[in-house]
Amino acid sequence: MIAGRTGVRQRGRGAVQDLDQLGIVAPVTKWRAECLQTDRIPEYVAAAVHHAMAGAPGVAYLEVPQDVFAASVHPEARPWPTGYADGSRSVPEPTGLRRALDALQEAERPLVVAGSGAFLSGAAEALLGFVECTGIPTTTTSAARGLIDDDHLRCAGGLVHGGIALASADVALVLGSRFNANLLYGGPPLFPPGQRVIQVDVRPENLGGPRRPEVGLTGDIRTTLEALAGSWARPPGALDEWAEKVRQAARASLQTWDAQCDRPSNGVHPGWLARQVAAFAEEQYRSGRGGTFVSDGGDSVVWGIAFSRAHRPGTNLFIGSAMGTLGVGLPFAMAAKAARPDEPVFLFTGDGAFGLSAIELDTAARHRLAVVIVVVNNGGWGDVRHEQRMFYGREADQGAKLSTMRYDLLAEAVGGHGERVVQAPEVRPALERALKAADGGSPAVVDVVTDPEVMSDLMKNLAGLDVM
Amino acid sequence: MIAGRTGVRQRGRGAVQDLDQLGIVAPVTKWRAECLQTDRIPEYVAAAVHHAMAGAPGVAYLEVPQDVFAASVHPEARPWPTGYADGSRSVPEPTGLRRALDALQEAERPLVVAGSGAFLSGAAEALLGFVECTGIPTTTTSAARGLIDDDHLRCAGGLVHGGIALASADVALVLGSRFNANLLYGGPPLFPPGQRVIQVDVRPENLGGPRRPEVGLTGDIRTTLEALAGSWARPPGALDEWAEKVRQAARASLQTWDAQCDRPSNGVHPGWLARQVAAFAEEQYRSGRGGTFVSDGGDSVVWGIAFSRAHRPGTNLFIGSAMGTLGVGLPFAMAAKAARPDEPVFLFTGDGAFGLSAIELDTAARHRLAVVIVVVNNGGWGDVRHEQRMFYGREADQGAKLSTMRYDLLAEAVGGHGERVVQAPEVRPALERALKAADGGSPAVVDVVTDPEVMSDLMKNLAGLDVM
Amino acid sequence: MIAGRTGVRQRGRGAVQDLDQLGIVAPVTKWRAECLQTDRIPEYVAAAVHHAMAGAPGVAYLEVPQDVFAASVHPEARPWPTGYADGSRSVPEPTGLRRALDALQEAERPLVVAGSGAFLSGAAEALLGFVECTGIPTTTTSAARGLIDDDHLRCAGGLVHGGIALASADVALVLGSRFNANLLYGGPPLFPPGQRVIQVDVRPENLGGPRRPEVGLTGDIRTTLEALAGSWARPPGALDEWAEKVRQAARASLQTWDAQCDRPSNGVHPGWLARQVAAFAEEQYRSGRGGTFVSDGGDSVVWGIAFSRAHRPGTNLFIGSAMGTLGVGLPFAMAAKAARPDEPVFLFTGDGAFGLSAIELDTAARHRLAVVIVVVNNGGWGDVRHEQRMFYGREADQGAKLSTMRYDLLAEAVGGHGERVVQAPEVRPALERALKAADGGSPAVVDVVTDPEVMSDLMKNLAGLDVM
Amino acid sequence: MIAGRTGVRQRGRGAVQDLDQLGIVAPVTKWRAECLQTDRIPEYVAAAVHHAMAGAPGVAYLEVPQDVFAASVHPEARPWPTGYADGSRSVPEPTGLRRALDALQEAERPLVVAGSGAFLSGAAEALLGFVECTGIPTTTTSAARGLIDDDHLRCAGGLVHGGIALASADVALVLGSRFNANLLYGGPPLFPPGQRVIQVDVRPENLGGPRRPEVGLTGDIRTTLEALAGSWARPPGALDEWAEKVRQAARASLQTWDAQCDRPSNGVHPGWLARQVAAFAEEQYRSGRGGTFVSDGGDSVVWGIAFSRAHRPGTNLFIGSAMGTLGVGLPFAMAAKAARPDEPVFLFTGDGAFGLSAIELDTAARHRLAVVIVVVNNGGWGDVRHEQRMFYGREADQGAKLSTMRYDLLAEAVGGHGERVVQAPEVRPALERALKAADGGSPAVVDVVTDPEVMSDLMKNLAGLDVM
Repeated sequence: MIAGRTGVRQRGRGAVQDLDQLGIVAPVTKWRAECLQTDRIPEYVAAAVHHAMAGAPGVAYLEVPQDVFAASVHPEARPWPTGYADGSRSVPEPTGLRRALDALQEAERPLVVAGSGAFLSGAAEALLGFVECTGIPTTTTSAARGLIDDDHLRCAGGLVHGGIALASADVALVLGSRFNANLLYGGPPLFPPGQRVIQVDVRPENLGGPRRPEVGLTGDIRTTLEALAGSWARPPGALDEWAEKVRQAARASLQTWDAQCDRPSNGVHPGWLARQVAAFAEEQYRSGRGGTFVSDGGDSVVWGIAFSRAHRPGTNLFIGSAMGTLGVGLPFAMAAKAARPDEPVFLFTGDGAFGLSAIELDTAARHRLAVVIVVVNNGGWGDVRHEQRMFYGREADQGAKLSTMRYDLLAEAVGGHGERVVQAPEVRPALERALKAADGGSPAVVDVVTDPEVMSDLMKNLAGLDVM
Repeated sequence: MIAGRTGVRQRGRGAVQDLDQLGIVAPVTKWRAECLQTDRIPEYVAAAVHHAMAGAPGVAYLEVPQDVFAASVHPEARPWPTGYADGSRSVPEPTGLRRALDALQEAERPLVVAGSGAFLSGAAEALLGFVECTGIPTTTTSAARGLIDDDHLRCAGGLVHGGIALASADVALVLGSRFNANLLYGGPPLFPPGQRVIQVDVRPENLGGPRRPEVGLTGDIRTTLEALAGSWARPPGALDEWAEKVRQAARASLQTWDAQCDRPSNGVHPGWLARQVAAFAEEQYRSGRGGTFVSDGGDSVVWGIAFSRAHRPGTNLFIGSAMGTLGVGLPFAMAAKAARPDEPVFLFTGDGAFGLSAIELDTAARHRLAVVIVVVNNGGWGDVRHEQRMFYGREADQGAKLSTMRYDLLAEAVGGHGERVVQAPEVRPALERALKAADGGSPAVVDVVTDPEVMSDLMKNLAGLDVM
Repeated sequence: MIAGRTGVRQRGRGAVQDLDQLGIVAPVTKWRAECLQTDRIPEYVAAAVHHAMAGAPGVAYLEVPQDVFAASVHPEARPWPTGYADGSRSVPEPTGLRRALDALQEAERPLVVAGSGAFLSGAAEALLGFVECTGIPTTTTSAARGLIDDDHLRCAGGLVHGGIALASADVALVLGSRFNANLLYGGPPLFPPGQRVIQVDVRPENLGGPRRPEVGLTGDIRTTLEALAGSWARPPGALDEWAEKVRQAARASLQTWDAQCDRPSNGVHPGWLARQVAAFAEEQYRSGRGGTFVSDGGDSVVWGIAFSRAHRPGTNLFIGSAMGTLGVGLPFAMAAKAARPDEPVFLFTGDGAFGLSAIELDTAARHRLAVVIVVVNNGGWGDVRHEQRMFYGREADQGAKLSTMRYDLLAEAVGGHGERVVQAPEVRPALERALKAADGGSPAVVDVVTDPEVMSDLMKNLAGLDVM
Repeated sequence: MIAGRTGVRQRGRGAVQDLDQLGIVAPVTKWRAECLQTDRIPEYVAAAVHHAMAGAPGVAYLEVPQDVFAASVHPEARPWPTGYADGSRSVPEPTGLRRALDALQEAERPLVVAGSGAFLSGAAEALLGFVECTGIPTTTTSAARGLIDDDHLRCAGGLVHGGIALASADVALVLGSRFNANLLYGGPPLFPPGQRVIQVDVRPENLGGPRRPEVGLTGDIRTTLEALAGSWARPPGALDEWAEKVRQAARASLQTWDAQCDRPSNGVHPGWLARQVAAFAEEQYRSGRGGTFVSDGGDSVVWGIAFSRAHRPGTNLFIGSAMGTLGVGLPFAMAAKAARPDEPVFLFTGDGAFGLSAIELDTAARHRLAVVIVVVNNGGWGDVRHEQRMFYGREADQGAKLSTMRYDLLAEAVGGHGERVVQAPEVRPALERALKAADGGSPAVVDVVTDPEVMSDLMKNLAGLDVM
């Protein structure tokens, strides 16, 4: 991220927006600097890119004061010795690898949990190779969704469904994830006490913490998986039975979600809606169009995660931290559309979360990032309202009610396509028209009025787990 | 500002949104703290309010971790010795007051420049008393607009018009403003080199800097004005002639703005539009309805400032720092409506600035803060585009073009009233309908397509003054 | 404070000491900035001085990168509009003054508590005038010690002795002190619940907090005292009887300290030593030589405070915050010697505290700041050891034992005068020789071995008051 | 580092030392946290140790408020899932290793530059194995001094001597060092433009920057060296001739330093002194006693570095960054003595640098860390004085003169052994007596008065290289 700043010449004199931007961004950036000399701008830009991408990637922030930016310099006779050798990857040392291999090869019910670090290291091919070589089933979470295709026989889908199998695994191989709230701090019900845990991370600082792994390995996920597969000695078929049980458990999990959708509701059921939209997106994928599915919101994100399927890396997106940072849905969707302009992009989002960045529909229209957005419009912050009622009584939902904003009209305001839907049967035709509009270059919003009383069972249970 | 935070119990374990919020807000708050014990919450809230309001007011930030907030405590037998004696004000010591009085009483062409500090100290009545007692004419700027009525015979209006008289004043009494970019750092063309300057501020740290005042006084503006008036010995009539010249200069300034509006334009002229809206707002005021006028934007704010009139404190609002912090228009307008629900509120804003907070129309609708918004829709960042072309050539307006977002439809999306206007004659009827809708409880947007090539002379000149 | 910094040219490249100095000093400075342009150095230095001195004084930190410092610039044709109108003072507004006057004039047992702010505003003469005009007795604390002479009939000495009278006062006028740990948060035993409290401070933010004053006044202490005295209407004699009681209470307090010194001890008693040194310093003062007495340490500082007398502003110095920030003794003493080179300066310090800055004896010798230092050498951190034993048992003094460093030899190492004393009768002759050496230009250390088991009653009681 | 802090109960009320310690340490710590709950203290301590040691080691700072520390908790039935799998190491991925191997095996004049990271990873044995397997000569710098014995036929000694060979190497293998000021930013005269550079670092962020390596490898130094050696295919003898040239160059370098010592000086020559002390330390080593040599100071450190020899890891210590952070000598020496109590420890230090921490001789005496200290007492900041004169003229040495502190007497003050030496022939006997005293348990200081006009050629040259 490169930002401007009050000029050095006017610093400290009450000039426009003269404030400590570096101080503000410090807690949320991996690297930050201010370039104070015009001839060093290339050097600083190179450093910013390097730090953003090296090792565990993160946000690098560079600011250039207005007058440093506006000045001119002649390129020096002796050019700056710039540059970085990026892309350097590491693998765990041999003894560590050996301990991991032993544990995995001794296991009767091993399971891979692939997390964000697996995605960030570009490990899709390596993970597929490892799974097919070893036969170990896999669940994917966070940014790693789709790293291995949900259709693959060794894939248990996302953690929301794969978690059941994880609870009965004897060895868990955790790739690129800390034991944070997302993983319930490495404890039950996901990780039972006696389970043997192997954790791989590019940053040794991330190993352990709330859960001590039996084997902690420092290394890039992609190259580590290649190294593990390269030394594997056991036939993959040995785990067929276990893998089938894993798939069954994931199917059973999905059925509990299906059952929730069939409960009576006063208006469109948000879970049913998620299932519809996911099915529609899946149709597009089956037809060869590819596609991306983004989920956002408090309770809505959970429905989206539960019903959407992931087939390829970076095509099933949601907030990285469990229940955190609402409003990333539209930016994620626009980025996916910019990356793969010919594929459809679906955003399934709660109305509260969507409102946080909905104005960026203007950006979507301006740059023709024609995404299809389904808004779960229940006129409120669903999960907050639920918690308030649970703790303080039914009348206590302070500040959690929203107005009945019509996001379909906002789509029209930016020159896009918008529809409001209040009955279940209207959903499918509306999706078809929305996709057609998007294919024509217009962002499209299907604003669906849903039952505000519905809350997913998962969200109800999480409130009691004290993860936040 | 009171915020939540990750619970102390889960701190440091990868819980949701566990970040250093205090670090982030530090550069932009006057006071900040985290309350770590449930029984001290009242004490911390009292401290936050005290620090926000004491002396020079500012933002106080208090955060309470989720588990500290959720826990219960019994009120203690011995209550906390809480509380502050707020509202304590100071005046300059007698010798300083005497020097100021002498300089002002010797002056032939004295002028008052009332700034934000005058508004924040609630000095309207004291300023009126001072002006009528001394006969010294006054110009108002920033938050002090309207502290003395623009209709008053000793008022030269805002600094944009009063600045001409200021340049020929022999003594300037600056009340509650630093010599920052807004005041051109206390230098020409506003403050000529030989001018005698008296500066009053509640914080002695604010005295001087880029311009050294001949007399610097520490004290609350309101009580200082009372003290000055209480010791005044010269009849106010002695300055009648000078005051008339000041009024003439302000009128002459306004005429140069009028002349700009009459230049040919390709579509609605933004200056002409500002004049129309300001005139419409003035009609409401004359009819006894009161009203607030808010200006926002890059170049649009300048037109709004130039043509709108201020009659009472806090009813003519715009960004406090010259050209800084876009997007405050709608929040300001909503706050004015909440404070004075029976009076009309007009927001005159550029489209770029409006977009930054336009989604809050939803908030306006939800809380029935029915403001009338006129959007100067030129499809771009006018002043940025102008600067880019000036420095880098006509084709260089990178990133300064916006789409033709229809903010009238956004108003409809929130259940409000919206109209798009493309011809000058449609403006007045649209304003009438918008006001009627607002009186009925609906926020209203009149989205006016204007000529993107027009730039005010003031903005053109500022680019050359190197104030940013 | 002006500091260097890695040059802008080498910033961010791993140059020597390239670290965020501004970040480090931020929590402990009032103002801080980095000057990035050579021609603005004078402007920044002026700003640093201004912010250090304006209003409530504090540390201003300015840093200049090496290459900015080393570059040369020609003075500009148009000089910077530099400068500040310093020294501007304020007084409380008339209504506040009136309420304070009413409360004080109605009082039967009023008492002034003069704190650091009174010293920092240079209020000695004003305080004397106020006391003599009103007859109200006074106690002084922190930097305000000596602001009114301990010999004065209306002076109750330091808070350690004056606190008893304060506890029975019906109205307390607190000048320039917050209700912090030093004032026991404005509560008992110093400030009883029903007492009427008037608080004056130059920063309205400092008014109230743990104790809400009945009257809170914003204003400079010196000018506020002048204003109060100027409106006083009651004869000073009316308070003669109360003033005599106040003096009696202070004398009674001193007697309890005397009694402690007479308890048997195993070696030199630290309290007896303090009384001896204070008496010796007092002799010098009586002989017309003036002099400064500095106290430092954990328990030692308490003895020094209790026995030393203050006659003039800035001549009785100790750590400003109750029990905080050890090691300031020698720097304070050297500063006093630099300010008043012809007067003797005595430092009475514990060995732990002294060790923190004892190496600066080298600085004292180099600049011929010839102070007389008496080290209470009990080979340990007395108060820490006491607390550890109290909480965890007699054998628990971990880390609180020091070696028997001979600070007299350190004095000789720097070319100064040093003596070690182990018997009480040797103290007086050693002090005489030390003073003689100091008068000859050599810093002198009298290192006295004292009984490590002795702890003052005050320190024992404080541990139970939970002030830390 | 574990620190206390004002109790949570008294936070924000003006209690003793209530300041933002986390803010102060943030710029100089790798990790920092405050533990706010008594039952989480073990968890936080574990995290602090983990972060201090994981990956690139660094300072971890933990603070525990007084009341959190003083409270008691019962161990929970369910213990905290504490713990980390420390010691996890990584190696570069195979393709990177291959590129490095190819470059090294093709090289005619390869050289290893071992830096701090090599020491921190404990790579001594691995480096020796690599050097003997490949025959590549090595120079060591910073904390890596002694990682391979200076006596080894493939060791060129420290960078101060090995730098000449480095300048003519065709391939440089840089282990655990950034291209910072120490390495002259990876440019000439150490690293010529056409040289092929391979850089290995545990943190990919450290790769490149001012110098772009041809091959950048992410991995732990120890395991990377093992991996490289394991795949090496070329006989070591092939580099015999080059290795001999490297040794010759180092010898030639040492001769230039020898020559400097023989120049006439007015009193003891600091270089000659360094050579004497180094020779004496070397004698002890040869006699089988082992030993550590520490250098500190501005110019003095350079002499110490040039003449002292390193035989084992961690036994030749000086400031890690070129010319930075004075005053670490005594703490380093004491740590070495604590680690290897039976071996002699020599500290060769300038007087200015020594003064910064000299008072810790008290700590040395208390804990019987009996080190031998040779102070180069030239009564000033030698390098600063030199620079000032160079830039501003001979009379310009402001603030760079120190007094003639006698550090030998300081040693006596703490109960240690001290001697002052003013003639060269006295040095050797004094060292013998000092070592004898240290062997008896007393820290010993030999304070040698040296010629203040002498400045090493290296320091003179550095001033022109603009590295700071």
